[in-house]
Amino acid sequence: MPPVHYELIKECPRTKARAGILHTPHGSFETPIFMPVGTQATVKTMTPEEVRELGAGIILSNTYHLYLRPGSELVRQAGGLHRFMNWPHGILTDSGGYQVFSLGPLRKITEEGVQFKSHIDGSTHFFTPEKSMQIQMDLGADIAMAFDECPPYPAEFEYAKRSLEMTTRWAKRCQGAHTREDQALFGITQGGMHADLRRESARQLVDLDFPGYGIGGLSVGEPKPLMYEMLDVTVPELPKNKARYLMGVGSPDCLLEGVARGVDMFDCVLPTRVARNGLAFTTHGKVVIRNAEYARDFERLDPECDCYTCRNYSRAYLRHLYKAEEILVYRLLTIHNLHVLLNLMRNMRQAILEDRFVEYKKAFLDKYGQENHS
Amino acid sequence: MPPVHYELIKECPRTKARAGILHTPHGSFETPIFMPVGTQATVKTMTPEEVRELGAGIILSNTYHLYLRPGSELVRQAGGLHRFMNWPHGILTDSGGYQVFSLGPLRKITEEGVQFKSHIDGSTHFFTPEKSMQIQMDLGADIAMAFDECPPYPAEFEYAKRSLEMTTRWAKRCQGAHTREDQALFGITQGGMHADLRRESARQLVDLDFPGYGIGGLSVGEPKPLMYEMLDVTVPELPKNKARYLMGVGSPDCLLEGVARGVDMFDCVLPTRVARNGLAFTTHGKVVIRNAEYARDFERLDPECDCYTCRNYSRAYLRHLYKAEEILVYRLLTIHNLHVLLNLMRNMRQAILEDRFVEYKKAFLDKYGQENHS
Ligand SMILES: [Zn+2]
Ligand SMILES: [Zn+2]
Repeated sequence: MPPVHYELIKECPRTKARAGILHTPHGSFETPIFMPVGTQATVKTMTPEEVRELGAGIILSNTYHLYLRPGSELVRQAGGLHRFMNWPHGILTDSGGYQVFSLGPLRKITEEGVQFKSHIDGSTHFFTPEKSMQIQMDLGADIAMAFDECPPYPAEFEYAKRSLEMTTRWAKRCQGAHTREDQALFGITQGGMHADLRRESARQLVDLDFPGYGIGGLSVGEPKPLMYEMLDVTVPELPKNKARYLMGVGSPDCLLEGVARGVDMFDCVLPTRVARNGLAFTTHGKVVIRNAEYARDFERLDPECDCYTCRNYSRAYLRHLYKAEEILVYRLLTIHNLHVLLNLMRNMRQAILEDRFVEYKKAFLDKYGQENHS
Repeated sequence: MPPVHYELIKECPRTKARAGILHTPHGSFETPIFMPVGTQATVKTMTPEEVRELGAGIILSNTYHLYLRPGSELVRQAGGLHRFMNWPHGILTDSGGYQVFSLGPLRKITEEGVQFKSHIDGSTHFFTPEKSMQIQMDLGADIAMAFDECPPYPAEFEYAKRSLEMTTRWAKRCQGAHTREDQALFGITQGGMHADLRRESARQLVDLDFPGYGIGGLSVGEPKPLMYEMLDVTVPELPKNKARYLMGVGSPDCLLEGVARGVDMFDCVLPTRVARNGLAFTTHGKVVIRNAEYARDFERLDPECDCYTCRNYSRAYLRHLYKAEEILVYRLLTIHNLHVLLNLMRNMRQAILEDRFVEYKKAFLDKYGQENHS
């Protein structure tokens, strides 16, 4: 038995949505699941206990960032990432690929790997599939991700084709270099916005038999319908008994559409990042708390939410804190936003179990409204 | 019975230290007590529940800041400060005097009051004793402070004399304007660094019969021994059955020396402010967490502390968060620093009750070390 495996519990008869359990060395977590992001070994503004209390079972942390600071070898010395950051539950680390490729002109890609410059001090570094594995084994998350190339959007067919083929070769090299038995290694499918290439990438990765699959290179600036189309062609290629993880996606409407297409896992910086900009997801759409209209609004942030923030504070108080640049407001909005997303995941799962996922999805979106960009 | 009164429980036979209980409309709190500062209606980085859990019973909030933002009338509309900020325990508001006088060249003092400019937008405002009372009644704290003039350090004898006399006249005007029956009004003694003037100011204020007395104009840049000297001459003038509050003092050694001289209440931004600069008070002195020596120090911040931070995180992790500018570190250091001070207050009280205050004070200072500046 591999260290991490997916157990299918129930399928929606009318969509590809499914409820399951993800078993890891640090606990079993009900899927579909949203993973809060702890880029630098902390979910921004929150204690681990608070994150857990909101219902998060597994979080994501960033290989690129931790490699640069404080250094993966230091984290290993500290007893691994779980212990270093006081989070005894599930952790998934990304491969560093996405961050390295986002650095744009600062990086150089070859078959061997990627040379890039640190965003902190400009120093030069070289990531290979083997290096990414070494770092992720040092960090010791429950799930490591294969080192992939994430092509920019838009990408020509030929570029995307060469890229996905190299990603497959890198995936094989990752398997060769990954030796930690208490850690699972997931593959990542690519293929740009080309349906044929998406299918091809998925088939090649499935041939390598990973215990789970990331769907990468989406939510990179494309229109949402195009992302959904890519999910429609990718997911059917993936085995039913393995977890499917849509990387970097976390707005409420995308979570619903992703689950409807058979995705089990999501991560996104959105709920924590927008909180720092004073933005809250509510059941009736977005609220920008700095707006003058809330100055004397003594109602709760979201009348239908029962999170700590909504139970105890008014919009007027949150706005005051935001205008005064008080750190507490970032915490309070992070708590609310994470609660909304984690609660959405729980509600979706319950709806799947009770054969009413389609109705739940429609009712949520009718009230929440549509957004154009992820 | 006034809304706030002090109950003397026990006096140290060898110093002026005393243990008591401060009764307020929002609870009774054991003294000597340290009040964390919530300048803008929040103790920076913390939820009210966390502040309470650390053992704080009463906090201080700032009249000047809340008047400017969000406005005291808005706070009144919200149901008062307790409700606005979700803190159902004790609150004391300062008079705004100290902030207004610290603005230096931007302000103009007359017998009527003080004209000053907002540090936020440069707009012009005028504070009088009556205006300070109106704002503080709107805020609705348990304890309001009389509007005083805090002379700069150093101040000539003549200046300090005229200033203390005006402070007494202002104190009378405050009594005339203060009508809220569920709120106590404390007077503030002044007198610069002149023993005679300190005594004179205390006598004048005591004649006005306030339910409690602030000792103002100290910790403004003078050497610590001089501050202790001023306490030595002021406190004996104050009645035994009223609380004595040393304003703006909060380093561990000053708390010990203040209590030894008969002070019951303290407030200071120090533990929260220095936390944001990466500085921790520990039982062995100060720790500057950003220092390179802690990069691979996997021990707890303070080996003798059992606060949440010390129980769960290493110095190496705290340093990583600090270098990465992660908000969590400001929380974790604030928790630790407040715990150290609040714990010190509890330990002092217990020592007074058990007739071993002198020994406790000596043992603490021997281990902590001396500091030259408050
Ligand atoms: Zn909420
Ligand atoms: Zn501690």
